[in-house]
Amino acid sequence: MDVVLSDNQLQALLADDVPYGDLTSQSLPLSSAPAWMHFYARAAMTVCGTEEVARLCQLLGLSPELHAPSGQVAPPGTLLLAVQGEPVTLLKLWKASQILLEWAAGLASATAEIVAAAGGVPVACTRKQTPGSKAMSVKAVRAGGGIVHRLGLSESLLLFAEHRQFLAEAPEVTLARLARQHPEQRRSVEVHDLVDARTWIAAGAEMLQLDKFSPSEVVQCLALCQELGRRPLIAAAGGVNAGNAGAYAAAGADLLVTSAPYWAKPRDVQVHFTPAAEAGL
Amino acid sequence: MDVVLSDNQLQALLADDVPYGDLTSQSLPLSSAPAWMHFYARAAMTVCGTEEVARLCQLLGLSPELHAPSGQVAPPGTLLLAVQGEPVTLLKLWKASQILLEWAAGLASATAEIVAAAGGVPVACTRKQTPGSKAMSVKAVRAGGGIVHRLGLSESLLLFAEHRQFLAEAPEVTLARLARQHPEQRRSVEVHDLVDARTWIAAGAEMLQLDKFSPSEVVQCLALCQELGRRPLIAAAGGVNAGNAGAYAAAGADLLVTSAPYWAKPRDVQVHFTPAAEAGL
Amino acid sequence: MDVVLSDNQLQALLADDVPYGDLTSQSLPLSSAPAWMHFYARAAMTVCGTEEVARLCQLLGLSPELHAPSGQVAPPGTLLLAVQGEPVTLLKLWKASQILLEWAAGLASATAEIVAAAGGVPVACTRKQTPGSKAMSVKAVRAGGGIVHRLGLSESLLLFAEHRQFLAEAPEVTLARLARQHPEQRRSVEVHDLVDARTWIAAGAEMLQLDKFSPSEVVQCLALCQELGRRPLIAAAGGVNAGNAGAYAAAGADLLVTSAPYWAKPRDVQVHFTPAAEAGL
Amino acid sequence: MDVVLSDNQLQALLADDVPYGDLTSQSLPLSSAPAWMHFYARAAMTVCGTEEVARLCQLLGLSPELHAPSGQVAPPGTLLLAVQGEPVTLLKLWKASQILLEWAAGLASATAEIVAAAGGVPVACTRKQTPGSKAMSVKAVRAGGGIVHRLGLSESLLLFAEHRQFLAEAPEVTLARLARQHPEQRRSVEVHDLVDARTWIAAGAEMLQLDKFSPSEVVQCLALCQELGRRPLIAAAGGVNAGNAGAYAAAGADLLVTSAPYWAKPRDVQVHFTPAAEAGL
Amino acid sequence: MDVVLSDNQLQALLADDVPYGDLTSQSLPLSSAPAWMHFYARAAMTVCGTEEVARLCQLLGLSPELHAPSGQVAPPGTLLLAVQGEPVTLLKLWKASQILLEWAAGLASATAEIVAAAGGVPVACTRKQTPGSKAMSVKAVRAGGGIVHRLGLSESLLLFAEHRQFLAEAPEVTLARLARQHPEQRRSVEVHDLVDARTWIAAGAEMLQLDKFSPSEVVQCLALCQELGRRPLIAAAGGVNAGNAGAYAAAGADLLVTSAPYWAKPRDVQVHFTPAAEAGL
Amino acid sequence: MDVVLSDNQLQALLADDVPYGDLTSQSLPLSSAPAWMHFYARAAMTVCGTEEVARLCQLLGLSPELHAPSGQVAPPGTLLLAVQGEPVTLLKLWKASQILLEWAAGLASATAEIVAAAGGVPVACTRKQTPGSKAMSVKAVRAGGGIVHRLGLSESLLLFAEHRQFLAEAPEVTLARLARQHPEQRRSVEVHDLVDARTWIAAGAEMLQLDKFSPSEVVQCLALCQELGRRPLIAAAGGVNAGNAGAYAAAGADLLVTSAPYWAKPRDVQVHFTPAAEAGL
Repeated sequence: MDVVLSDNQLQALLADDVPYGDLTSQSLPLSSAPAWMHFYARAAMTVCGTEEVARLCQLLGLSPELHAPSGQVAPPGTLLLAVQGEPVTLLKLWKASQILLEWAAGLASATAEIVAAAGGVPVACTRKQTPGSKAMSVKAVRAGGGIVHRLGLSESLLLFAEHRQFLAEAPEVTLARLARQHPEQRRSVEVHDLVDARTWIAAGAEMLQLDKFSPSEVVQCLALCQELGRRPLIAAAGGVNAGNAGAYAAAGADLLVTSAPYWAKPRDVQVHFTPAAEAGL
Repeated sequence: MDVVLSDNQLQALLADDVPYGDLTSQSLPLSSAPAWMHFYARAAMTVCGTEEVARLCQLLGLSPELHAPSGQVAPPGTLLLAVQGEPVTLLKLWKASQILLEWAAGLASATAEIVAAAGGVPVACTRKQTPGSKAMSVKAVRAGGGIVHRLGLSESLLLFAEHRQFLAEAPEVTLARLARQHPEQRRSVEVHDLVDARTWIAAGAEMLQLDKFSPSEVVQCLALCQELGRRPLIAAAGGVNAGNAGAYAAAGADLLVTSAPYWAKPRDVQVHFTPAAEAGL
Repeated sequence: MDVVLSDNQLQALLADDVPYGDLTSQSLPLSSAPAWMHFYARAAMTVCGTEEVARLCQLLGLSPELHAPSGQVAPPGTLLLAVQGEPVTLLKLWKASQILLEWAAGLASATAEIVAAAGGVPVACTRKQTPGSKAMSVKAVRAGGGIVHRLGLSESLLLFAEHRQFLAEAPEVTLARLARQHPEQRRSVEVHDLVDARTWIAAGAEMLQLDKFSPSEVVQCLALCQELGRRPLIAAAGGVNAGNAGAYAAAGADLLVTSAPYWAKPRDVQVHFTPAAEAGL
Repeated sequence: MDVVLSDNQLQALLADDVPYGDLTSQSLPLSSAPAWMHFYARAAMTVCGTEEVARLCQLLGLSPELHAPSGQVAPPGTLLLAVQGEPVTLLKLWKASQILLEWAAGLASATAEIVAAAGGVPVACTRKQTPGSKAMSVKAVRAGGGIVHRLGLSESLLLFAEHRQFLAEAPEVTLARLARQHPEQRRSVEVHDLVDARTWIAAGAEMLQLDKFSPSEVVQCLALCQELGRRPLIAAAGGVNAGNAGAYAAAGADLLVTSAPYWAKPRDVQVHFTPAAEAGL
Repeated sequence: MDVVLSDNQLQALLADDVPYGDLTSQSLPLSSAPAWMHFYARAAMTVCGTEEVARLCQLLGLSPELHAPSGQVAPPGTLLLAVQGEPVTLLKLWKASQILLEWAAGLASATAEIVAAAGGVPVACTRKQTPGSKAMSVKAVRAGGGIVHRLGLSESLLLFAEHRQFLAEAPEVTLARLARQHPEQRRSVEVHDLVDARTWIAAGAEMLQLDKFSPSEVVQCLALCQELGRRPLIAAAGGVNAGNAGAYAAAGADLLVTSAPYWAKPRDVQVHFTPAAEAGL
Repeated sequence: MDVVLSDNQLQALLADDVPYGDLTSQSLPLSSAPAWMHFYARAAMTVCGTEEVARLCQLLGLSPELHAPSGQVAPPGTLLLAVQGEPVTLLKLWKASQILLEWAAGLASATAEIVAAAGGVPVACTRKQTPGSKAMSVKAVRAGGGIVHRLGLSESLLLFAEHRQFLAEAPEVTLARLARQHPEQRRSVEVHDLVDARTWIAAGAEMLQLDKFSPSEVVQCLALCQELGRRPLIAAAGGVNAGNAGAYAAAGADLLVTSAPYWAKPRDVQVHFTPAAEAGL
């Protein structure tokens, strides 16, 4: 997978953690002989962020070895990345790199769990990324096998109840208007109950986003589609997680929409320092 | 509390979500009559981020009313912020604002839970913020009554085992060196077991960070201090959370160090739109 | 329409033109009595950029009057914006503002001409914006009544011949794969001739982008759809302009895709300076 | 010629087009075998921007071959740049690179046409660059053999009628004042008719910018200089283009000032993808 | 004078000093009653930077009173700026504001001293600004009555010996070439001795920059001009300061070029805090 | 020492000086044969900034040789850095590099002089860096053997009189409060006279910053400590420089706090250009 942070963003992340160097390292007569820093998966994980850490190492003049690319499923003990350098440089890079890898692996792994539970139905994550983390969050969702529901508000149509509140026209008029203006975009509508669903299926929505429907309500909604002779795509959203993804998939949803991975616990990454000689180089 | 994101960072956050406007709103004949957007706490929460949302509203030319400042403990239903504007503008601001408030309240509230459990012992959060979210994370920790352990590596001393690995000198020599060079900074040392602890208490550390000690090991460490006649500050770190914070405090730790709030689940914030007339204006 | 440049981008645009003040103004004993600067449409135009100029004025502490919002069709002589201030401040703002208005009006007006020629068929502009001008270009396209074809590569599917070159699978396999993975996105394919078109209509494309087809080839392509009993959306792209948009629309295209407005000639905006007293204030 | 965009600006340009990867490429089992991407001039052109594209390739870890530097006159079919990489990486770079090259070549080539028409009289482009494109526009003007009239308002003197409107002193007083304060800068004055020209020649201007004078008025202005025994530099500005540049040069102008190249049509650049093996590597 | 830092630069300056708030203030039960912060000139000074401090106050929601604009000559005790706010906000702004004012006043005042010594001959400061401080340095030079020699390398011609080293042509050929290509720019040449000076006066330089000439060598150079019947502008550069500026002016230099103000000692600014009530409000 | 400016900051520094290339170089037929640019210490200096210049060279595609790292004490004539490239590229880099090296060496060398005078007592520089120069200033202080007193307000406690002014509680209450909340930070207090000092020694300050005490007042303060049986760290601040540092050290201060290096005169760096052949390559 690509590096998704610009050089400037990577250097800013490092500066967040080490704005003026590691005061402790700078004050001590640390060995200047080259050493290795190895990052290992401590727990099982879907890897994410190794490309970014590798690029950060390069920006500091090092030549990292990337062992596990983003998206790889890594059992405990897997070597993710190794880099050689002066101890003072490695100690500066250490935590910012480890924190990025742990957090991204947490997000990717949590996505992968929902994807596994969904059994082939696509899992789309929402826009509820931790503010400031969007590019990496999107990457981690994809590393975990998920897709991103809407990258933003600017390139897709999703009619919320909050839009409808300020509209004075019939549903079919609204959908026809959107079809006329934006033929390239699917016409999606979020609905909160079956009455609402009936209205918008009848009006011609191409996709319905069912907000906080139970799996059995999803089944009912699909029955409604059959009754009305129209079959928009059905997305289940609101409270979807690894525990209920299977049930929503079994109910017949075409797409599961979830925010749960964004607050997954980070997965531990172990960092080992070794004098370059000891490591056999 | 202060706005901690610059105007540029706030506009970038909004652009992350709405880079080129809300396509749905733009395509519809929404009413242009002023409306209200009200943000309410859906669950109980320690509020955080209302100042940033207010500033963002101002940057779009609106005049928000801030009802609940960051740090306020809000029962369900509390009005956090209200702002009036054209529907198309409110719909653009909506989700980016809501997501910020929910995430920050989650972090602040989780911090507050540990603080409550710690019964007066300070709770310091680590550097494991979600990458890219540092300024707001620090604010949320403080809103929840916590402090920040180390803002970075550049203005405090913390001797890790990983530093010691590259040093060839006696512990007391290292500490004397740090004392001589940086009299303004406390000399802190991270230790992983009681043997290590003994060494560094004897060598004159001013603060020991006990990594993954159980509460009973903390008690043993304090006994060691008494035996050696030296009493550095004792910080418990590694796996501290709301469930065990009380035990660590009871064991006598002077400081609890934790990363747990950074992956707290967001707290729900409800957003209501109302035509300005209905709202009694 | 919204201001689409951040405060920082607006101040950067001004700094591009006036990095260290207007040397000429600074060297002269200009009157410091408040004056007016009025911007008028010299030619007929679809206005664009007045909101950005107004915001820039505000950032310099002025209180502009916005007379013609973006999207307004303005006959020659229309007052677009007026602002009062010290001459030295107005002279600094002058050209950067005028240049922005002229260029954006050129782009919006050229779009409007194609839109008019297309007689109701949507006109979508491509990604060929002048590098560095994207946000304003998108705004100007919309001000002229156009839409934007793809805001980028990240939130829509468009299968190019260049993708297919690196694929070793049948067309229907590819489309099924995209459908399975990204049910929310339309499956669009760019084709270069009728043979190609037949293949992808048959394979189930939801939208065909016909690259450099003549209007009569568009007609033939639609006949092909009828023959095959499948009717994807048909977009005509490549060389579409105000001169031939009507013909493409008449041929039955559902969407016209064009880059032509991006190199439209700017529309002249006239700027008048008047002492505030003379202007009747 | 130098790369004139910073690494950060180059990565931002790419992110404008591909903020989160090419969704189509990411969803397909594209070959991962290295391929070549070759950029060719489709039409004759003055090349511009190849250095920037090459640097962008490097920032993504590729090793491009630059075949035609900016400023080179390239007949149709000329190879401009070649780069090898994984198809998914090349497809990401493709359009942003092509668009940059096409636009910049359009600007450079249009400049070159005016330069050719001017027969040795320098052609200076104005500050009317498309907002946001200044650095590349300046480069393209120079690639086409032009110069830049004023890079901004801060390092040259040009007295406009709009300045004079706020001055209450005689022309020679103003010019003496400028000479005293800024001996390093030429004292230039923009004039709109021959009466104006006479005033400022007499007052001692070092350069006159004749706004919208016809070639025959330029001749008259030069006669005026002879009559007055003073010969400032004479620049013709306002409406100068490839069609009339020769006439202005023949009339005796020392400098032609034009904005026309900024809205030149881009020159087509063809991009070919080939498996690395086929390309003979 | 204008604010020369963008909002973003101002907020970055504050963040340099107070990235996460004033820890001391935040930890104390400071009065929240509004207070005044007054900035006074402690020593005599040419004021600089009050506009920037005022804007920074505004960005934090305060309404500052600007009492002494940049460029004003202020005797000791002069009130420069006053602002009212909560103590915690004022304490955050305090030092960053004071440091800016002191440094800028130091630079402006040192410039003013050389200007005074030069007795009417313009004093131009070089490009040797402290790296990172350029915009404010330029402002301070102007506030002190100086001008800026060259804002950069891109909009003026100055032929150094280091250029000539890579040229294989006669001086008059070089100057003719520059005249032909860039009629708008003066042709300046830096010379290091009288032999060099003779060469370039003869070759037709419009301005000579005499590097490290003594005042008497300046006199000799002017004699040379008379002998050769050509009188370029003569700038004295290299080691010019308040002590010798008068001598260089007396020697007949048309322009003095100096870097000395850039390392001037800051001028003390006193800051007083008063409860708003006490201050009579 | 590390490069402390990001790539983006380095490219911005260069753009400050050469926004659109060196007009003089661009206009001349300079040799394109590779040449060397060598930077030498003209005066004795503590070197600083060579790593940044080296990185800047790399960003322009060159391969510099770093001969003298930051912190090295260099006698006159020491080669600091050498780089080979086309003359036009070297001439572009020249002054921005030289100015950075000269200024940073001035700051580092001035620090080194105070450090030498202090005879082993640590010398801490204040936050009074030239606005905009912080990262490099911090580096230069360290290169000269100094430390940085407070990097900002956010990670240390220093109680000013200005804080106390808004507090209504006894000194020991304040200090206890700080101890309870921030056990990791030393509790420092700035005092202005001996009466003040007595109060805060008695109240339990861990460090006293003596503002503008004479060396003999420092002695008196230490006597006071003995009398009170408490020995906080004693820092002397306000007017400390190379002339009096020895006296303050002799008086018994534990730390000297100074701003003097920030306005040190730059140290001259000589730059030589040589054709690569002549240099023996």
